[in-house]
Amino acid sequence: MSSQPISLSAQSDPVALAAELIRCPSVTPAEGGAIDLIQRWLEPLGFACERLTFADEGLPPVDNLYARLGTGAPHFCFAGHTDVVPAGSEAAWSVPPFQPAVVDGMLTGRGAADMKGAIAAFLAALARFTENGKPAGSISLLITGDEEGMAINGTRKLVKWLQENGETIDHCIVGEPSNPEIMGDMIKVGRRGSFNAQLTVSGIQGHVAYPHHADNPVPKLTALLAALTGEPLDDGYERFQPSNLEVTALATPPLAENVIPGEAGARFNVRFNPNWTGASLEAHLRDRLEEAAAAHDGGIDWTLSARTSGEAFLTTDTAYTDLLADCVEQHTGRRPELSTSGGTSDARFIKDIAPVAEFGLVGATMHKINEQVATGDIHLLTAIYHTILTRYFDAS
Amino acid sequence: MSSQPISLSAQSDPVALAAELIRCPSVTPAEGGAIDLIQRWLEPLGFACERLTFADEGLPPVDNLYARLGTGAPHFCFAGHTDVVPAGSEAAWSVPPFQPAVVDGMLTGRGAADMKGAIAAFLAALARFTENGKPAGSISLLITGDEEGMAINGTRKLVKWLQENGETIDHCIVGEPSNPEIMGDMIKVGRRGSFNAQLTVSGIQGHVAYPHHADNPVPKLTALLAALTGEPLDDGYERFQPSNLEVTALATPPLAENVIPGEAGARFNVRFNPNWTGASLEAHLRDRLEEAAAAHDGGIDWTLSARTSGEAFLTTDTAYTDLLADCVEQHTGRRPELSTSGGTSDARFIKDIAPVAEFGLVGATMHKINEQVATGDIHLLTAIYHTILTRYFDAS
Repeated sequence: MSSQPISLSAQSDPVALAAELIRCPSVTPAEGGAIDLIQRWLEPLGFACERLTFADEGLPPVDNLYARLGTGAPHFCFAGHTDVVPAGSEAAWSVPPFQPAVVDGMLTGRGAADMKGAIAAFLAALARFTENGKPAGSISLLITGDEEGMAINGTRKLVKWLQENGETIDHCIVGEPSNPEIMGDMIKVGRRGSFNAQLTVSGIQGHVAYPHHADNPVPKLTALLAALTGEPLDDGYERFQPSNLEVTALATPPLAENVIPGEAGARFNVRFNPNWTGASLEAHLRDRLEEAAAAHDGGIDWTLSARTSGEAFLTTDTAYTDLLADCVEQHTGRRPELSTSGGTSDARFIKDIAPVAEFGLVGATMHKINEQVATGDIHLLTAIYHTILTRYFDAS
Repeated sequence: MSSQPISLSAQSDPVALAAELIRCPSVTPAEGGAIDLIQRWLEPLGFACERLTFADEGLPPVDNLYARLGTGAPHFCFAGHTDVVPAGSEAAWSVPPFQPAVVDGMLTGRGAADMKGAIAAFLAALARFTENGKPAGSISLLITGDEEGMAINGTRKLVKWLQENGETIDHCIVGEPSNPEIMGDMIKVGRRGSFNAQLTVSGIQGHVAYPHHADNPVPKLTALLAALTGEPLDDGYERFQPSNLEVTALATPPLAENVIPGEAGARFNVRFNPNWTGASLEAHLRDRLEEAAAAHDGGIDWTLSARTSGEAFLTTDTAYTDLLADCVEQHTGRRPELSTSGGTSDARFIKDIAPVAEFGLVGATMHKINEQVATGDIHLLTAIYHTILTRYFDAS
């Protein structure tokens, strides 16, 4: 195994730029110098840069960037985030997480895959693409520092700001690490919705020796959970997997071991496809709970508190997604799957203003100890993004 | 409502003595002066008093008393505890919990019912009974300061000490508040066993968006709980209720709301009748769990950690329990139920060395804010205990 420091001499080397971004300790919500770096890189290319700091009561302010080159249509946007999740146990890393190194062909550091490597690749592609002049339209970057956190003071508010300022985007690509295992695996063209809920069942606390004076909520809770999980929610939807419910937590109050609890709760999450909206899903789950409660001997006293953190969506502009897939296939020899699997991303906000897809690096190590990407993949992604820019503006 | 201080002038007034005991702040494991007080009262009556301090690694030492009058048979023993549970919110009490007062005919203070009132009644009965000389046999008191706590350094070790020192007891009465609502309701002639267990199911932690990479232990846990609670354990046994299992806690590790937990656990308690021993019950429950795990698609990885804190027992010496019931009926006009219901008591240890039954005051307020007993009930119990002593030694 060899380890060597990365030279940052060539600005157009996407691996060196990725390393420079990783050196910025931009754990949400810290800017860490990462957005400054991007701005210093874009301004010489002619980008008009707007720094937008959003804040919300009780949350730390977040730094964001909207940078645009050109004023005409079509308007192609690259969206990304500089914030990263915490390093976890630094001692477990083979290199310090914010002092990246290339080891055995892999650039290792927090954010290498998610998603400083992809930002670097897009910036390098931009530099090459604009070498011969401005695009026949507009290119913008929508960069946030609040994707891994609450996602309240980032893209959600950037999108609102764009709408309020008459900024229209025609198509957007998000640089999330969309490939599960190898470059060319997958383009994300939609996302399942995400629904979080807390189910609470009330009973009557009492001594285990006198169960007739108590009313144990645990068997009632398990009956309700059986009703929620007993039948599938649906069979899937176009490119979507079936909607899926997972119980993520069970809890009772801290009590002595001879006490029947007065309350029992469960938390669950549903990843749902466009068969549902958050609202229709909640109504359906409430129906299931009501029916199960009515069927239970003596009834069940339950409450449900629910929150939809993202609705399901599918990008149906096939001309756009085919163009992306063509470019990926050209460089990887693989026809990427157009998928809606996996977790949420900021595409859930952008889908309200433009057709959006996600393509970036390989995500296998994202959020983990020793997050890493192959340096060759960063170069390959740079080439793919360059081809996307070229064909996008050629086609229009 | 009238409130007046209690005069402690008459040593033979059981209400005044109860109040004096309550003034001793003997929250487990503190002696609080209560055992000293009893000893000072017994010695002039001719009792030989042994103070026994037991300790165990990691637990505070506990003060206990064994006092015996006479050396011959038959040997009648009164067992009790001076320790009390904490007062809880003192502000919620109508009188300071360790400054008892008689209000509207009720002696109010921590321990009034459980069981300083009964100790006072027995002491007063003793004073009357020994006025005309010593009994035709022996009378002893087995007083512990560790009944409400871990019950490790109290009666459990007193019983062992008695065995090691050749002290044989023929019959025992424990002064627990055995009457649910009114004097004469109930004599306890046995107890269900108590079995505590922790059931843990292992899965594989993962992101809710990728359930195929995870293995949610929650549905497996609920399947196992259904197997434990689905069928009754038995239909009862002689004077015993059916054995009963209550799930007392559910838990998963603290995790973000988008994470499938890697482990889920439940705690449960079984109160069981003599159809079972702790060991046979555990074997049966393990069989149920194994069967349910085998029937579950993909199996279930579970562990069970169990502890039996008391075996079930029934006092079958009907001559003794009939004598007690006769005495109670004589003074209350009620034939008490010979019951095995309710929680555990130190009778579970004493049953190994002598036929044992429990009779004391009304337990409705035990362990609660404003624990109280009617002063008339303390006098009534004194009369009952006096009659028990008289008839016991007359009969022998």
